[in-house]
Amino acid sequence: MSVENAKRIMMEHFASTARKFGLSELYGYIYGVLFFEDEPMSLGEIAERTGYSLSHASSALKFLENLGLVVRIKKPGDRKAYYKAVKNIQEWRRAAYYKRILEDVKETRESLLRALEELEGEESGEAERVRERIELLLKKNLVAEKIAEILSKGDEKVLRVIIDCIEKRSKRTSDDGSGAAL
Amino acid sequence: MSVENAKRIMMEHFASTARKFGLSELYGYIYGVLFFEDEPMSLGEIAERTGYSLSHASSALKFLENLGLVVRIKKPGDRKAYYKAVKNIQEWRRAAYYKRILEDVKETRESLLRALEELEGEESGEAERVRERIELLLKKNLVAEKIAEILSKGDEKVLRVIIDCIEKRSKRTSDDGSGAAL
Repeated sequence: MSVENAKRIMMEHFASTARKFGLSELYGYIYGVLFFEDEPMSLGEIAERTGYSLSHASSALKFLENLGLVVRIKKPGDRKAYYKAVKNIQEWRRAAYYKRILEDVKETRESLLRALEELEGEESGEAERVRERIELLLKKNLVAEKIAEILSKGDEKVLRVIIDCIEKRSKRTSDDGSGAAL
Repeated sequence: MSVENAKRIMMEHFASTARKFGLSELYGYIYGVLFFEDEPMSLGEIAERTGYSLSHASSALKFLENLGLVVRIKKPGDRKAYYKAVKNIQEWRRAAYYKRILEDVKETRESLLRALEELEGEESGEAERVRERIELLLKKNLVAEKIAEILSKGDEKVLRVIIDCIEKRSKRTSDDGSGAAL
């Protein structure tokens, strides 16, 4: 057991997170180095620590900065750029998943609305039946959109609110003897 | 504008949903035919309506049944099998996304716990600093797991509870003048 082993496990984990998202593991290692540092690190220090060339490290840092995982810091009287890890890479990954769900939900919405438009003015029993079904999907689609929007922001406070709320509710339903679990 | 156009739009939508999930569009079309029917349809009727062979239609129905999107129904005194669409194909697709997130969360948990194990008994300042950071990730990981577990069940009632809860909270924070939006 050792601190170095613990760090190594986490570095491997960040690298595998990057790979799973279709990125080079380089991004994971660089993020990992910054994750364990209290102080911002210069490009040179990062390159040295990870063993990557300055140009590789620099373009990876630019990329991580664009993703919002790393921030660049300027120190007064110092021309060098320093970097700091800011956001949790796992949360970022999940937010990306939720964004995909959100895109999916929006595409579905478009199809549903186009289909409903086609039914405008149609008053046969068949039209009514089809309309009802599509409207039900539309209702579910709106609920799904709200949920995915909330989650894609990945705001931790909101996640806590959701959990508290669900726990309270399952407590209430078991207290009042209705026995209906959520 | 016509009912047929509306149905066609929805059929295309179901087919594209199937494709996006790496399945043949055949699954989407067959699901779509059942989606608009009130009464269960026999295999023969489904094959005829979609233009697929009996054997193709039959294996697609088995697959859809395994996914829980379609149920098979037996009628008394009738040897034929009948099929009915039960679950929303979009909800199923989202549940599958949430399951992936859940797998991801569990893998992350394992790395975090392994890293913490390595730190057991280590009491240097460095060990303390690394431990703190990993424990923070672990806390976030547990929250993420709960959320993904709830969502992967795709229970519509739970989704409503979540939305009500969030709406109530944002109302409360704006009522009390704290102005803090969720």
